[in-house]
Amino acid sequence: MAARYLYGQPTRGRWDHGTTGGPRPVHDALGWLDDEAARRHRAGLHRELRPRAADAAPLDLAGNDYLGLARHPEVIAAAVEAAERWGAGATGSRLVTGSTALHAELEAELADFCGFEAALVLASGYAANLAALTALGGRGTLIASDAGNHASLIDGCRLAHAEVAVVPHADPAAFDKALDRHQGRALAVTDSVFSVDGDAAPLPALAAVCRERGAALIVDDAHGLGVLGEGGRGAVAAAGLAGAPDVVATVTLSKSLGSQGGAVLGPRRVIDHLVNAARTFIFDTGLAPAAAGAALGALRLLRREPGRAERARSHAATLHRRLTAGGLSAARPDAAVVSVRAPSPEAAVGWAAECRAAGVAVGCFRPPSVPDGVSRLRLTARADLTRGALNRALATILTTAPRP
Amino acid sequence: MAARYLYGQPTRGRWDHGTTGGPRPVHDALGWLDDEAARRHRAGLHRELRPRAADAAPLDLAGNDYLGLARHPEVIAAAVEAAERWGAGATGSRLVTGSTALHAELEAELADFCGFEAALVLASGYAANLAALTALGGRGTLIASDAGNHASLIDGCRLAHAEVAVVPHADPAAFDKALDRHQGRALAVTDSVFSVDGDAAPLPALAAVCRERGAALIVDDAHGLGVLGEGGRGAVAAAGLAGAPDVVATVTLSKSLGSQGGAVLGPRRVIDHLVNAARTFIFDTGLAPAAAGAALGALRLLRREPGRAERARSHAATLHRRLTAGGLSAARPDAAVVSVRAPSPEAAVGWAAECRAAGVAVGCFRPPSVPDGVSRLRLTARADLTRGALNRALATILTTAPRP
Repeated sequence: MAARYLYGQPTRGRWDHGTTGGPRPVHDALGWLDDEAARRHRAGLHRELRPRAADAAPLDLAGNDYLGLARHPEVIAAAVEAAERWGAGATGSRLVTGSTALHAELEAELADFCGFEAALVLASGYAANLAALTALGGRGTLIASDAGNHASLIDGCRLAHAEVAVVPHADPAAFDKALDRHQGRALAVTDSVFSVDGDAAPLPALAAVCRERGAALIVDDAHGLGVLGEGGRGAVAAAGLAGAPDVVATVTLSKSLGSQGGAVLGPRRVIDHLVNAARTFIFDTGLAPAAAGAALGALRLLRREPGRAERARSHAATLHRRLTAGGLSAARPDAAVVSVRAPSPEAAVGWAAECRAAGVAVGCFRPPSVPDGVSRLRLTARADLTRGALNRALATILTTAPRP
Repeated sequence: MAARYLYGQPTRGRWDHGTTGGPRPVHDALGWLDDEAARRHRAGLHRELRPRAADAAPLDLAGNDYLGLARHPEVIAAAVEAAERWGAGATGSRLVTGSTALHAELEAELADFCGFEAALVLASGYAANLAALTALGGRGTLIASDAGNHASLIDGCRLAHAEVAVVPHADPAAFDKALDRHQGRALAVTDSVFSVDGDAAPLPALAAVCRERGAALIVDDAHGLGVLGEGGRGAVAAAGLAGAPDVVATVTLSKSLGSQGGAVLGPRRVIDHLVNAARTFIFDTGLAPAAAGAALGALRLLRREPGRAERARSHAATLHRRLTAGGLSAARPDAAVVSVRAPSPEAAVGWAAECRAAGVAVGCFRPPSVPDGVSRLRLTARADLTRGALNRALATILTTAPRP
């Protein structure tokens, strides 16, 4: 169908080009977007989508499929079976028609695996974090939030109608100080493994502070599940906090479990409360059956093959050791993410492009996706990388590194 | 694995039960949830999940699968093919590894079908609304938002760092008044079809106001796509607004398209801006291939069978006519949703339960999911309902209706 315009043709007129800030037609309500685009280009911060082909298979050190399960035949078969049995979509909110026995099965097995009383599955990890923070926040609540937290936790804080104290990164004493001043309900919230640099939060110390101050602890274990803890049960389990009455975890189904979606794990009363109060749960369509099925398939596979978690960590340690030995500045990995500094956004983009041209996909993180303004390559150490693949990736990254 | 507790056993002690507000152990940071649960139960507002079985197939007038495509063999086959070809998950952010050629194909066909220059697919409709509002909002921007808007639009307004004016429902003069006071960037935002009562927004009049005031118009067409407009192209296309330079639409892939996900549709510069600025796009895993494939399959089927849209509307008109003839108070449907008033939350729950016991699934909406505090049944008129099924549903709803 040809586009029709209520007001005639599109009005990108002579005032519209360039970035001079000159007069605009009053109806060019979105003309400012051109200035924004020009600013991004000048700053070297422009991003475009680069869709991948199904048959082009670069050596992938960029995705979050830490255990290599997204393309595992068993996981794909579980997705297929779920779509055929339950349909292509959940058809409604989980509170109306969107809850299937498959969702319930996934929730029970996920909670059991991670050591929690109950779990609630949502359409994304982003939605899970918004759900946990908004439902457990509220007026009069203080949320102490780590300065390095993921965007979805930050947005959850903003939506929670709470007082928010952003505290210095990974600093239990700072959490203690923030919580000390507050009378009434309080939460502390942190990533377990920070996405960009792959460093771990000091969970036992944070939990001790929370207990002392009467605060609940919310931990986003998106990058811990499948990688840390016994058999990949996650950072919260590894810290001995899984199942504690005042600890809530969130996870994604889209990283180690190779699928899509997110979940909140916690005491039953927290899950019951989310079902009744979390807007991103109540007012969203349930997770598609294929995604729920794939996540369940991946979880069962991980139970049978617990060594995958250890292999991902071991590969990350290898990457770090050999990159720093090669003269690069890389953060010590606490899980499966290895972050390598680049001298500038442009250098990071060029470096990543050279790696890609050589058949190695790496992540390239620039502002505003980095907490400190420092651009870097972000490498993920998949459990299913062979020794040969690791060697090839290392050689490529080292030989293409920008000279300072 | 048995749950381990850092601080010993869970502490639901004697202070914990009931709602007396007595002393709590300092570490029972989430004890207030029990009070909340008791309050919900007393008010008749408690909700629980009721997972459905794959083989139990009630007559469904509750889901949002308006065209009956979630279980269509072609749509399921498209989901299966996508999972087998692309894997169970997208493996990362759309900006890293999460963009496949399949996503690009879906975006191109969806934009073309709806009459827009470009489209961007996200993991959910909720995420699409947050993306559009946060990326197009910002400090100094005024957002005029319809009082009946969906939760995701409300949350998008809250996250947009903008000044928000909530204006009376479906009232172009009220939008005009709100926008008149503002100097600088402005947006107006509305559902095209309001989810709870199924009434339509006055889009042409709203667009005229926006044009006059230099504001962009954002329309959530979640309940219009597939139902309204020529062949189901949506309410924005039906109003002649698709492709206009100052109009942005959001849609879901989880209702008429039977899958999961959401999309933003608009001028190319809007989409480019979202890729660079929308946190729920940048910091979320891409939509799972199976969901993208299913949505694309459904879109192609809808192009071939445009009569499905008209059938959904016709069934809604039939439901409304016969329910009001039977003495019930039902809102006139502008799309495929028919809302029927219940005397109280408890009566609504009982009514819906009686329908379900008779094999007819209906939606039951209570506070806080209703804009006006009035509980109701929410019925959806699927295109693929047979005349016999419609008759059976009507008979069930009428005979189980609570007496005033």
